[in-house]
Amino acid sequence: MSKQLLPLVEAEGCCAPLAAEPIGADEAAELAPLFKALGDPVRLRLLSLIASHEGGEACVCDLTGAFDLTAPTISHHLKVLRQAGLIGSERRGTWVYYWINPPLLERLSSLLGPARVLR
Amino acid sequence: MSKQLLPLVEAEGCCAPLAAEPIGADEAAELAPLFKALGDPVRLRLLSLIASHEGGEACVCDLTGAFDLTAPTISHHLKVLRQAGLIGSERRGTWVYYWINPPLLERLSSLLGPARVLR
Repeated sequence: MSKQLLPLVEAEGCCAPLAAEPIGADEAAELAPLFKALGDPVRLRLLSLIASHEGGEACVCDLTGAFDLTAPTISHHLKVLRQAGLIGSERRGTWVYYWINPPLLERLSSLLGPARVLR
Repeated sequence: MSKQLLPLVEAEGCCAPLAAEPIGADEAAELAPLFKALGDPVRLRLLSLIASHEGGEACVCDLTGAFDLTAPTISHHLKVLRQAGLIGSERRGTWVYYWINPPLLERLSSLLGPARVLR
Protein backbone atom coordinates (compact mmCIF):
# COMPACT_ATOMS: atom_id res chain seq x y z
CA MET A 1 0.00 0.00 0.00
CA SER A 2 1.38 3.40 -0.93
CA LYS A 3 2.81 5.72 1.69
CA GLN A 4 1.15 9.06 2.23
CA LEU A 5 1.42 11.96 4.63
CA LEU A 6 -0.32 11.45 7.93
CA PRO A 7 -2.75 14.03 9.26
CA LEU A 8 -0.96 14.81 12.52
CA VAL A 9 -2.20 16.95 15.35
CA GLU A 10 -0.22 18.78 17.95
CA ALA A 11 0.61 16.91 21.12
CA GLU A 12 -1.19 18.19 24.19
CA GLY A 13 0.79 16.61 26.97
CA CYS A 14 0.10 13.10 28.14
CA CYS A 15 -3.57 12.80 27.57
CA ALA A 16 -6.17 11.59 25.21
CA PRO A 17 -9.23 13.75 24.61
CA LEU A 18 -11.09 11.25 26.80
CA ALA A 19 -8.68 12.16 29.57
CA ALA A 20 -8.44 15.85 28.75
CA GLU A 21 -11.85 16.67 30.19
CA PRO A 22 -15.07 14.77 30.87
CA ILE A 23 -16.92 14.22 27.62
CA GLY A 24 -20.43 15.58 27.51
CA ALA A 25 -23.67 13.62 27.38
CA ASP A 26 -24.31 14.60 23.75
CA GLU A 27 -20.89 13.48 22.53
CA ALA A 28 -21.15 10.25 24.52
CA ALA A 29 -24.59 9.57 23.01
CA GLU A 30 -23.15 10.16 19.55
CA LEU A 31 -20.05 7.99 20.00
CA ALA A 32 -21.38 5.06 22.05
CA PRO A 33 -23.28 3.51 19.09
CA LEU A 34 -20.05 3.50 17.07
CA PHE A 35 -18.24 1.52 19.76
CA LYS A 36 -21.26 -0.74 20.09
CA ALA A 37 -21.07 -1.44 16.35
CA LEU A 38 -17.39 -2.39 16.83
CA GLY A 39 -18.28 -4.62 19.78
CA ASP A 40 -18.68 -7.79 17.78
CA PRO A 41 -15.82 -10.00 16.54
CA VAL A 42 -17.36 -10.60 13.12
CA ARG A 43 -17.86 -6.88 12.57
CA LEU A 44 -14.30 -6.11 13.69
CA ARG A 45 -12.98 -8.67 11.21
CA LEU A 46 -15.23 -7.37 8.42
CA LEU A 47 -14.04 -3.82 9.05
CA SER A 48 -10.43 -4.97 8.99
CA LEU A 49 -10.96 -7.03 5.83
CA ILE A 50 -12.45 -3.98 4.10
CA ALA A 51 -9.80 -1.57 5.44
CA SER A 52 -6.91 -3.81 4.44
CA HIS A 53 -8.25 -4.79 1.04
CA GLU A 54 -6.29 -3.69 -2.01
CA GLY A 55 -7.47 -0.29 -3.17
CA GLY A 56 -9.24 0.41 0.13
CA GLU A 57 -12.52 -1.16 -0.85
CA ALA A 58 -13.85 -4.68 -0.96
CA CYS A 59 -16.60 -6.46 -2.81
CA VAL A 60 -19.03 -8.41 -0.64
CA CYS A 61 -17.74 -11.38 -2.66
CA ASP A 62 -14.30 -10.79 -1.06
CA LEU A 63 -15.75 -10.90 2.46
CA THR A 64 -18.00 -13.91 2.76
CA GLY A 65 -15.28 -16.53 2.25
CA ALA A 66 -13.46 -15.58 5.46
CA PHE A 67 -16.36 -16.67 7.68
CA ASP A 68 -18.28 -19.82 8.38
CA LEU A 69 -21.46 -17.78 8.31
CA THR A 70 -24.40 -17.45 5.95
CA ALA A 71 -24.58 -14.56 3.48
CA PRO A 72 -27.58 -13.01 5.30
CA THR A 73 -25.61 -13.00 8.57
CA ILE A 74 -22.67 -11.28 6.89
CA SER A 75 -25.09 -8.81 5.32
CA HIS A 76 -26.63 -8.08 8.71
CA HIS A 77 -23.24 -7.23 10.21
CA LEU A 78 -22.31 -5.08 7.20
CA LYS A 79 -25.60 -3.23 7.62
CA VAL A 80 -24.82 -2.51 11.29
CA LEU A 81 -21.40 -1.10 10.32
CA ARG A 82 -22.96 0.94 7.51
CA GLN A 83 -25.79 2.32 9.66
CA ALA A 84 -23.20 3.40 12.25
CA GLY A 85 -21.36 5.25 9.47
CA LEU A 86 -18.18 3.21 9.89
CA ILE A 87 -18.35 1.96 6.29
CA GLY A 88 -19.85 3.19 3.06
CA SER A 89 -21.20 1.05 0.26
CA GLU A 90 -22.25 1.20 -3.37
CA ARG A 91 -23.78 -1.33 -5.73
CA ARG A 92 -21.93 -1.74 -9.03
CA GLY A 93 -23.57 -4.27 -11.29
CA THR A 94 -23.84 -7.62 -9.54
CA TRP A 95 -21.90 -6.74 -6.39
CA VAL A 96 -21.99 -4.30 -3.52
CA TYR A 97 -18.64 -2.68 -2.69
CA TYR A 98 -17.64 -1.44 0.76
CA TRP A 99 -15.03 1.01 2.05
CA ILE A 100 -14.16 2.35 5.50
CA ASN A 101 -14.75 5.88 6.82
CA PRO A 102 -11.22 6.97 7.92
CA PRO A 103 -12.18 10.29 9.60
CA LEU A 104 -14.69 8.54 11.84
CA LEU A 105 -12.22 5.80 12.80
CA GLU A 106 -9.58 8.45 13.52
CA ARG A 107 -12.02 10.31 15.74
CA LEU A 108 -12.57 7.18 17.82
CA SER A 109 -8.83 6.52 17.84
CA SER A 110 -8.08 10.04 19.03
CA LEU A 111 -10.69 9.78 21.76
CA LEU A 112 -8.99 6.70 23.22
CA GLY A 113 -5.34 7.42 22.55
CA PRO A 114 -2.70 9.96 23.46
CA ALA A 115 -2.42 13.08 21.30
CA ARG A 116 -0.32 12.59 18.21
CA VAL A 117 2.71 14.65 17.38
CA LEU A 118 3.27 17.34 14.79
CA ARG A 119 6.71 17.02 13.23
CA MET B 1 -1.88 17.43 34.88
CA SER B 2 1.86 17.06 34.48
CA LYS B 3 3.42 16.62 31.08
CA GLN B 4 5.20 13.40 30.36
CA LEU B 5 6.88 11.74 27.41
CA LEU B 6 4.53 10.00 25.04
CA PRO B 7 5.13 6.39 24.15
CA LEU B 8 5.43 6.84 20.40
CA VAL B 9 5.72 4.16 17.78
CA GLU B 10 7.27 4.35 14.39
CA ALA B 11 5.00 5.40 11.56
CA GLU B 12 4.26 2.63 9.08
CA GLY B 13 2.82 4.56 6.19
CA CYS B 14 -0.79 5.50 6.01
CA CYS B 15 -2.47 2.70 7.82
CA ALA B 16 -3.81 1.64 11.13
CA PRO B 17 -3.16 -1.90 12.25
CA LEU B 18 -6.81 -2.60 11.40
CA ALA B 19 -5.98 -1.62 7.84
CA ALA B 20 -2.52 -3.17 7.76
CA GLU B 21 -3.82 -6.71 7.46
CA PRO B 22 -7.02 -8.55 8.35
CA ILE B 23 -7.13 -9.13 12.08
CA GLY B 24 -7.48 -12.76 13.12
CA ALA B 25 -10.45 -14.41 14.77
CA ASP B 26 -8.64 -14.71 18.11
CA GLU B 27 -7.68 -11.04 18.26
CA ALA B 28 -11.18 -9.99 17.19
CA ALA B 29 -12.70 -12.18 19.91
CA GLU B 30 -10.37 -10.60 22.45
CA LEU B 31 -11.00 -6.98 21.40
CA ALA B 32 -14.72 -6.99 20.60
CA PRO B 33 -15.80 -7.18 24.28
CA LEU B 34 -13.70 -4.08 24.99
CA PHE B 35 -15.51 -2.09 22.31
CA LYS B 36 -18.81 -3.50 23.53
CA ALA B 37 -17.99 -2.22 27.02
CA LEU B 38 -17.37 1.23 25.48
CA GLY B 39 -20.64 1.04 23.56
CA ASP B 40 -22.76 2.76 26.15
CA PRO B 41 -22.93 6.53 26.75
CA VAL B 42 -22.89 6.26 30.54
CA ARG B 43 -19.82 4.03 30.45
CA LEU B 44 -18.03 6.38 28.03
CA ARG B 45 -18.74 9.29 30.36
CA LEU B 46 -17.64 7.31 33.43
CA LEU B 47 -14.40 6.34 31.70
CA SER B 48 -13.78 9.96 30.74
CA LEU B 49 -14.61 11.23 34.24
CA ILE B 50 -12.11 8.76 35.72
CA ALA B 51 -9.45 9.46 33.08
CA SER B 52 -9.72 13.23 33.43
CA HIS B 53 -9.91 13.30 37.21
CA GLU B 54 -7.09 14.98 39.07
CA GLY B 55 -4.37 12.48 39.86
CA GLY B 56 -5.70 9.97 37.34
CA GLU B 57 -8.08 8.26 39.69
CA ALA B 58 -11.54 8.98 40.98
CA CYS B 59 -13.54 7.97 44.00
CA VAL B 60 -16.97 6.53 43.25
CA CYS B 61 -18.19 9.55 45.25
CA ASP B 62 -16.78 11.78 42.46
CA LEU B 63 -18.72 9.92 39.78
CA THR B 64 -22.30 9.53 40.90
CA GLY B 65 -23.12 13.25 40.95
CA ALA B 66 -22.69 13.61 37.19
CA PHE B 67 -25.61 11.32 36.39
CA ASP B 68 -29.30 11.20 37.06
CA LEU B 69 -28.94 7.51 37.82
CA THR B 70 -29.11 5.38 40.94
CA ALA B 71 -25.91 4.26 42.66
CA PRO B 72 -26.56 0.59 41.74
CA THR B 73 -26.85 1.56 38.06
CA ILE B 74 -23.56 3.46 38.21
CA SER B 75 -22.00 0.48 40.01
CA HIS B 76 -23.22 -1.86 37.28
CA HIS B 77 -21.59 0.23 34.55
CA LEU B 78 -18.35 0.50 36.53
CA LYS B 79 -18.38 -3.28 36.93
CA VAL B 80 -18.73 -3.76 33.15
CA LEU B 81 -15.74 -1.45 32.56
CA ARG B 82 -13.73 -3.22 35.25
CA GLN B 83 -14.55 -6.71 34.01
CA ALA B 84 -13.45 -5.65 30.52
CA GLY B 85 -10.15 -4.51 32.04
CA LEU B 86 -10.61 -0.89 30.95
CA ILE B 87 -10.47 0.35 34.55
CA GLY B 88 -8.95 -0.89 37.78
CA SER B 89 -10.34 -0.33 41.24
CA GLU B 90 -9.42 -0.56 44.90
CA ARG B 91 -11.35 -0.03 48.10
CA ARG B 92 -9.73 2.37 50.56
CA GLY B 93 -11.75 2.77 53.71
CA THR B 94 -15.27 3.90 52.88
CA TRP B 95 -14.82 4.45 49.15
CA VAL B 96 -13.82 2.53 46.07
CA TYR B 97 -11.32 4.32 43.80
CA TYR B 98 -11.07 3.81 40.04
CA TRP B 99 -8.36 4.45 37.46
CA ILE B 100 -8.08 3.78 33.74
CA ASN B 101 -5.85 1.21 32.02
CA PRO B 102 -3.83 3.36 29.56
CA PRO B 103 -2.06 0.51 27.68
CA LEU B 104 -5.38 -1.14 26.86
CA LEU B 105 -6.94 2.13 25.67
CA GLU B 106 -3.85 2.81 23.57
CA ARG B 107 -4.12 -0.63 22.03
CA LEU B 108 -7.69 0.11 20.95
CA SER B 109 -6.64 3.56 19.76
CA SER B 110 -3.81 2.11 17.69
CA LEU B 111 -6.10 -0.47 16.15
CA LEU B 112 -8.45 2.23 14.85
CA GLY B 113 -6.05 5.03 14.05
CA PRO B 114 -3.12 5.76 11.79
CA ALA B 115 0.34 4.81 13.03
CA ARG B 116 1.88 7.43 15.26
CA VAL B 117 5.22 9.05 14.60
CA LEU B 118 8.59 8.58 16.30
CA ARG B 119 10.39 11.89 16.64
